[in-house]
Amino acid sequence: MLRLGILGCGRIGQVHAQSIGQVPNAELVAVADAMPAAADALASTSGAEARAAEDILSAGDIDAVVIGTPTDTHFDLIQAAAANRKAIFCEKPIDMDVARIRACIDAVEAAGVAFMSGFNRRFDPNFAELQRRLREGEIGEVEIVTILSRDPSPPPISYIESSGGLFRDMMIHDFDMARFLLGEEPVRVQAVGAALVDPAIGAAGDVDTAAAILTTASGRICQISNSRRATYGYDQRIEVHGAKGLLKAENQLESTVELATEAGFRRAPTQHFFLERYAQAYVLELAEFVGAVLDGKAPTPSIHDGLRAQALADAADLALREARLVEVDLT
Amino acid sequence: MLRLGILGCGRIGQVHAQSIGQVPNAELVAVADAMPAAADALASTSGAEARAAEDILSAGDIDAVVIGTPTDTHFDLIQAAAANRKAIFCEKPIDMDVARIRACIDAVEAAGVAFMSGFNRRFDPNFAELQRRLREGEIGEVEIVTILSRDPSPPPISYIESSGGLFRDMMIHDFDMARFLLGEEPVRVQAVGAALVDPAIGAAGDVDTAAAILTTASGRICQISNSRRATYGYDQRIEVHGAKGLLKAENQLESTVELATEAGFRRAPTQHFFLERYAQAYVLELAEFVGAVLDGKAPTPSIHDGLRAQALADAADLALREARLVEVDLT
Amino acid sequence: MLRLGILGCGRIGQVHAQSIGQVPNAELVAVADAMPAAADALASTSGAEARAAEDILSAGDIDAVVIGTPTDTHFDLIQAAAANRKAIFCEKPIDMDVARIRACIDAVEAAGVAFMSGFNRRFDPNFAELQRRLREGEIGEVEIVTILSRDPSPPPISYIESSGGLFRDMMIHDFDMARFLLGEEPVRVQAVGAALVDPAIGAAGDVDTAAAILTTASGRICQISNSRRATYGYDQRIEVHGAKGLLKAENQLESTVELATEAGFRRAPTQHFFLERYAQAYVLELAEFVGAVLDGKAPTPSIHDGLRAQALADAADLALREARLVEVDLT
Amino acid sequence: MLRLGILGCGRIGQVHAQSIGQVPNAELVAVADAMPAAADALASTSGAEARAAEDILSAGDIDAVVIGTPTDTHFDLIQAAAANRKAIFCEKPIDMDVARIRACIDAVEAAGVAFMSGFNRRFDPNFAELQRRLREGEIGEVEIVTILSRDPSPPPISYIESSGGLFRDMMIHDFDMARFLLGEEPVRVQAVGAALVDPAIGAAGDVDTAAAILTTASGRICQISNSRRATYGYDQRIEVHGAKGLLKAENQLESTVELATEAGFRRAPTQHFFLERYAQAYVLELAEFVGAVLDGKAPTPSIHDGLRAQALADAADLALREARLVEVDLT
Repeated sequence: MLRLGILGCGRIGQVHAQSIGQVPNAELVAVADAMPAAADALASTSGAEARAAEDILSAGDIDAVVIGTPTDTHFDLIQAAAANRKAIFCEKPIDMDVARIRACIDAVEAAGVAFMSGFNRRFDPNFAELQRRLREGEIGEVEIVTILSRDPSPPPISYIESSGGLFRDMMIHDFDMARFLLGEEPVRVQAVGAALVDPAIGAAGDVDTAAAILTTASGRICQISNSRRATYGYDQRIEVHGAKGLLKAENQLESTVELATEAGFRRAPTQHFFLERYAQAYVLELAEFVGAVLDGKAPTPSIHDGLRAQALADAADLALREARLVEVDLT
Repeated sequence: MLRLGILGCGRIGQVHAQSIGQVPNAELVAVADAMPAAADALASTSGAEARAAEDILSAGDIDAVVIGTPTDTHFDLIQAAAANRKAIFCEKPIDMDVARIRACIDAVEAAGVAFMSGFNRRFDPNFAELQRRLREGEIGEVEIVTILSRDPSPPPISYIESSGGLFRDMMIHDFDMARFLLGEEPVRVQAVGAALVDPAIGAAGDVDTAAAILTTASGRICQISNSRRATYGYDQRIEVHGAKGLLKAENQLESTVELATEAGFRRAPTQHFFLERYAQAYVLELAEFVGAVLDGKAPTPSIHDGLRAQALADAADLALREARLVEVDLT
Repeated sequence: MLRLGILGCGRIGQVHAQSIGQVPNAELVAVADAMPAAADALASTSGAEARAAEDILSAGDIDAVVIGTPTDTHFDLIQAAAANRKAIFCEKPIDMDVARIRACIDAVEAAGVAFMSGFNRRFDPNFAELQRRLREGEIGEVEIVTILSRDPSPPPISYIESSGGLFRDMMIHDFDMARFLLGEEPVRVQAVGAALVDPAIGAAGDVDTAAAILTTASGRICQISNSRRATYGYDQRIEVHGAKGLLKAENQLESTVELATEAGFRRAPTQHFFLERYAQAYVLELAEFVGAVLDGKAPTPSIHDGLRAQALADAADLALREARLVEVDLT
Repeated sequence: MLRLGILGCGRIGQVHAQSIGQVPNAELVAVADAMPAAADALASTSGAEARAAEDILSAGDIDAVVIGTPTDTHFDLIQAAAANRKAIFCEKPIDMDVARIRACIDAVEAAGVAFMSGFNRRFDPNFAELQRRLREGEIGEVEIVTILSRDPSPPPISYIESSGGLFRDMMIHDFDMARFLLGEEPVRVQAVGAALVDPAIGAAGDVDTAAAILTTASGRICQISNSRRATYGYDQRIEVHGAKGLLKAENQLESTVELATEAGFRRAPTQHFFLERYAQAYVLELAEFVGAVLDGKAPTPSIHDGLRAQALADAADLALREARLVEVDLT
């Protein structure tokens, strides 16, 4: 049995609390939030105890922490958790600054604690199946990875302002997916972007529509495109073109019902947003973390995966701002 | 080179004239119609000569006739064509009366002329591929055949009145398709029907919505359903459930374009009606006729196929009217 | 809070125990089975108490019973539960004999207890959405209902022998679905069937491949086809043709991953069997029961729905055995 | 009636000869080829006369020429045709050198003759419908255009060597499609590529797998990816993400037949290659040319469209070779 504490009782903390309830051998002992009311609320629905974060970090009855607090608090919490020898599950991004992520790696490795980066999409059953079949060689060597990722609607401007920008907040998931699928590290990044959805996003110094191309040393290509708005729902598609064929994973629609009229054939929109689409992925992600820690294995994606996705996001941001190709070294 | 004459210059005669223009080794020499203006019109667009029907039947420069006149004229034209040793392509139904069809068989077999029944759907590339793969054993023994067949909108009541009823006018195509796919002759027919689309069709003694079940001696099942109206276009689907799997042929849509909005994903309606959907089938059907006659082979579907489909239509009509299962013997 | 007891700890009892765990305001208090080991096993995984069936029926701490025992025990359990004023959820079929079902109706109505028949498919989110949109008039008046329902592989012969036959054991679900969708009671039944999958099923006096046509007084048609074996998985499709269009609900596939190679485009098989396909439906079904009982409302489908589906199954069985159309009166 | 001559009787010349036969008001008078046998062969199947190219260019009985010769001959033929006041249809690319294309523009505009660039894909009924609906505002302002374009297998190395490279030979079609769909001129080009399919293509100085990102002044994005090899056939897909939704055009498959087995659901491969996929497009393209010339209108795509696509191909080639973003000015 792994005894867990959750730091941060916002939306993602609540998701993880629910997941822990569905994972065998996992027990949610305590939750903490800077706003006591939030901690109390999650405590009451989950049956856990509300405690102060520092008490969770130092608790003798807790083996692992799930960090779902604002990004700028991750660094200190990781340091403290490592110092207290807790296994750590941390939401992406680990930190906005790769130098500080490296410092986290040092702390985690020095303490010898398990660390898992929260890239939930690797655990989507469709994407996971696609990647497994890819690794089994079903379509031979990977040549072109295409990732389309679009949100139903943009977040509030206040969120945008502290998000680190689209590449670090949104496309970072796709950078991780690119690494998951390419089978080689990207070495070059090109990126474009504009504020086409909402000029206020542009005024805040960010873009809402963007694309990137990554290439690996052997010439494999990954294309990514993002939009902060898709009228038809949460659009999450990947496809991989290989030497022997193509593997693709389509969106999941809200239902299988189809209507035929003189206007044609109409199917349901995609599942609305990430909480619906990745409901299963969140549970499987926590199960991977819990299982790995209990078995004494290193969970995946690792802290290095978190660092590398962040480095790609930084490179894309630079490529856009300087209108040039940027080389990266993720080794 | 096969030299052809067309009898009947209405819609279907025009389709066949166009098809002949696309079939190698086929030449349309002359056309005839009870209305001289219709014959002249088709003559001018096809480059053929307008002649009287009897002149076509006795012509020395014509090897084969395509009969596309009203059903009640078929009998005499077949007798005359056989007497004049012309190869015969005749639209369905050969005649409304199976006894008279048997008389046509006698005349055709006595004269030793080639005869092909006009069941165009066997030549639809999708249905033909499905049937070929079925015969090649791709899904093992046939168990359940499902045929859905729906027109975009009902014909005029005047047409209904002289049509012989839905089973002989519309479902006859599906009875032929059932025989094409089942791999055994049906021995029992059950049928239901009602005028749900237009009460005037009911007042004319016919139904516009109907279904039938056929069974073969070994227990294979074919389900058919028909409607005279489908708002989304011409609906023509078949599927065959076999011991090793399922083969199905879907509708062809007007385009591959799909629209995604908050209302979901919308594809195009089906191709509008039989002239669009079966455009290729009509050409391939004539090519089969021309090729078989030139090679001295018996074209398929034969005059016996025409008889059997009519017998099934009669049985279904009786089954509906007497509210009972009807046994048929097609051997 | 509704306090429940489960009678019968086999596969379906276990499914309901899990469902109760996911339904708010529902508490599983006790479970019973003729085999004490089965009751103990379910008690331990569900946290409920193992008791004797008679103790559950008379318990003061239990408000409702879920009956998932063999069919021939339903009658006595329903009588006892009604006498003890327990709300009753009973798996289909209520009984093999409609006269005995009528006696159950008398007992249930005399006692004034809630009763729900276990037709889980009405709660499949896709089928439920389709039916809701139908009732909202999205495609106008219903004209043709088509139901395709196929199991991945046949049950053991021992099961077949005590099943009451395909129409009462398997197609009964489709008869209920037909009633759910048609919007009118069927008045005529025709049916065909054969043992095409396994001759041993025929030797046991049953069929494994079957079809039926139901018609209503106004002429609406429902076509159903069943097979005990589908190599590609559990096939559960419905479509409804109406005056203004078509509504269909497709199968749910195991994943959205598609492979393209020189052999074409290959998607996943359907979800394997009813436990996977109807996982959500089982929870929603129990939630309906619990919610209705707590709110003092009559749950749907009712005991009368159970009776009517059984009457249609009897009629289809008779239609097959006597090779004739059978009239039914479900009012 | 427009009287045409074809220059170049290779594969594409033969396609255009067939198309002319299906276009009303068009007559193929003569054909020419550097290899007399090729001209004779096409003359005999098309019913046209075989002549020398210079005789076609100066002929009094010819109004328009269709240029389908090797690219390095286009320049002289265009000059001669303009001097002889023939309307000109010229296959892409007009010339490998944009300066020489500009000289062609001067000649064509000085002579006042009609000129159409052979970008057949604009006439694919699916792509044309998509673009029309885009222009009608169905999805609002264009934001992201995604074009996936893959050949079934690479051409011979000898072809590669004289092709001008993937961007000018293959992706040029996609650059034209990008301009057709974006609704604004691209101003920046980034590109990547590698020889992943065949090292011999790399040894010949070319790539066989490539991607590009174009952006317009207002920030619209177009992503393109190409491969010289797709095991599943000729892959030609486009999708456009706009403010109000998404429009996509899928591949056309060889048939609508689908097979279901324990391996899942398998549909047909895509239509094999461009002759099959764009058969209709080639006819519609010629019809546009013939119609425009007869009506005295300027046909589209124009010679300027040919220039601009070539300029984008040059920019992409430069972007790849210099590993940098390249600015272009197409105004």
